[in-house]
Amino acid sequence: MRITTVGLDADDTLWHNETLFRLTQDRFRALMADHAPSEVLDVRLAEIEKRNLRLYGYGVKGFTLSMIETAMELTGNEAPGRLIADILAAGREMLSEPVEPLPGVDKALDELSQKYRLVLITKGDLLHQEQKLAASGLGDLFAAVEIVSEKDASTYERVFARHGTGAGEAVMCGNSVRSDILPALEAGAYAAYVPYPLIWAHEVADVPTGHPRFAELASISELPAWVSGL
Amino acid sequence: MRITTVGLDADDTLWHNETLFRLTQDRFRALMADHAPSEVLDVRLAEIEKRNLRLYGYGVKGFTLSMIETAMELTGNEAPGRLIADILAAGREMLSEPVEPLPGVDKALDELSQKYRLVLITKGDLLHQEQKLAASGLGDLFAAVEIVSEKDASTYERVFARHGTGAGEAVMCGNSVRSDILPALEAGAYAAYVPYPLIWAHEVADVPTGHPRFAELASISELPAWVSGL
Repeated sequence: MRITTVGLDADDTLWHNETLFRLTQDRFRALMADHAPSEVLDVRLAEIEKRNLRLYGYGVKGFTLSMIETAMELTGNEAPGRLIADILAAGREMLSEPVEPLPGVDKALDELSQKYRLVLITKGDLLHQEQKLAASGLGDLFAAVEIVSEKDASTYERVFARHGTGAGEAVMCGNSVRSDILPALEAGAYAAYVPYPLIWAHEVADVPTGHPRFAELASISELPAWVSGL
Repeated sequence: MRITTVGLDADDTLWHNETLFRLTQDRFRALMADHAPSEVLDVRLAEIEKRNLRLYGYGVKGFTLSMIETAMELTGNEAPGRLIADILAAGREMLSEPVEPLPGVDKALDELSQKYRLVLITKGDLLHQEQKLAASGLGDLFAAVEIVSEKDASTYERVFARHGTGAGEAVMCGNSVRSDILPALEAGAYAAYVPYPLIWAHEVADVPTGHPRFAELASISELPAWVSGL
C-alpha cells in the first residue's frame, strides 16, 4: 500500500489540552465552593456546555462563556465580588498557556515528515490553534493546516483530497475515537488511535478493534513504524 | 487581462454584521445605564476589545467576553442581578441571528459564479462564519471558503494560489480598506472596495484612490461589469 499523507490531530495528540481544561475546572470549583458542591457544578457545567456547543463550537472562549453562565445560574444571578472577573482571567490564562509537545512527538513528526505529507487537522478556536502550533515549534513540519468546525467523514475526504492523494492513501492519527478514528475509517483512510489519559465526555466512543485499517498505539513514537509497514 | 478568481469578504460585504454589533452595543449601554455614561462605556469597551484582540481574535464570542469584562470593571466587580446573564443572552442572540444577503448580492454572485471561481475569504469565528454562509443560501456559489485569523498580503497570496491561478489573476472585493483592499493590492491582486455605511474602528484606513488595480464601487451590483472589463 502506498501511503502519501499523514493527518494528525492537535489537542491531546501533539500537546496537552484536556489537562488544562480539567485544571481550569478545578479552579472554577474552588471559586464556586461557597455556592455549589463540586458534583452539582460539574453536572450543570457539562449540561450548559453541551447546550451551547451548537452556537459556540469547540475551544476556550466558548468554555469560558459556559463557566460564566453556570456561575450566574448557580448563584441565582448574584455572583459575588471578583468571581466573574476571576473566571475571565482563568480563560485568558488558558489562551496564553505555553505549549509543549508531548513526549515523542518531535521525533515521530520529524521522521514522518521526511516520507509523507503531514497535515494538521483540528477543531477549536481558529486563532488559538494557529497560535498553539506556532508556539509548539512544529509548524514547519506540516505541509498544511486545516482547522475545521466538525470532524466527520466528509471532512476527511475533502482534506485528504485537497492536501494529499485521497483518503485511501492517507493515515489519520489522534486521541479521539469519535472525531479522529471512526470518521477517518469511514472516509476510507487508515487510522491510528493514540489514547490520552483524559478524554472530554463529548468525545467518548467505542474503539473499533479488529478493523483492517485500524491500530491502537501506546505512543505516537510507534506511528512511523506502523505507517511504513502498511 | 485574464481574471480567473474572485475573492469576496463576508461580513458587511455579503450580509449585515457591524449593524448587529452596534445594536448589541446599544443594548449593552442600556443595561449599564446605572453604572456608566455611554461615552465612558464605549471608550472602555473599545480599549478592552483591543487589548483582548490578540487572545480572542475576531468574532462574537470574544466580543461577548469583552462586554462582560467591561461590565465587571465599570461596576467595581459588583455587577447587579441579571446584568451578566443579559450580556450572555445578547451574545447568544447575535450567534443565532438570521442572515439575509445585502441588496444585489444574490444577483451579482450568481452572475460572477458563471465565469469565475468564487472564494469566500473572511475573519471571525470559524463555526459562526460557516453557519452564516449556510443560512445565507449563498454557499453553493462558492468554489472554496477560507476562514482566516488575519488578512495580510501573504494570506491573499496563499489563498489565490491554492484556489485559483495566483493573485495576479484574481480580484478581491470587500468593505474594509485595511483588510480587504490594501493587502490584496500588495499581494498583486485587483481590489474592489464596496463601502458599508458603518465600519469597526479597528478597520479604518485611507482609500488608495488612483491605484491602477483598484476601484471603489457604489454597490456590489457593479462588480460583475468591473471584473469583466479588466
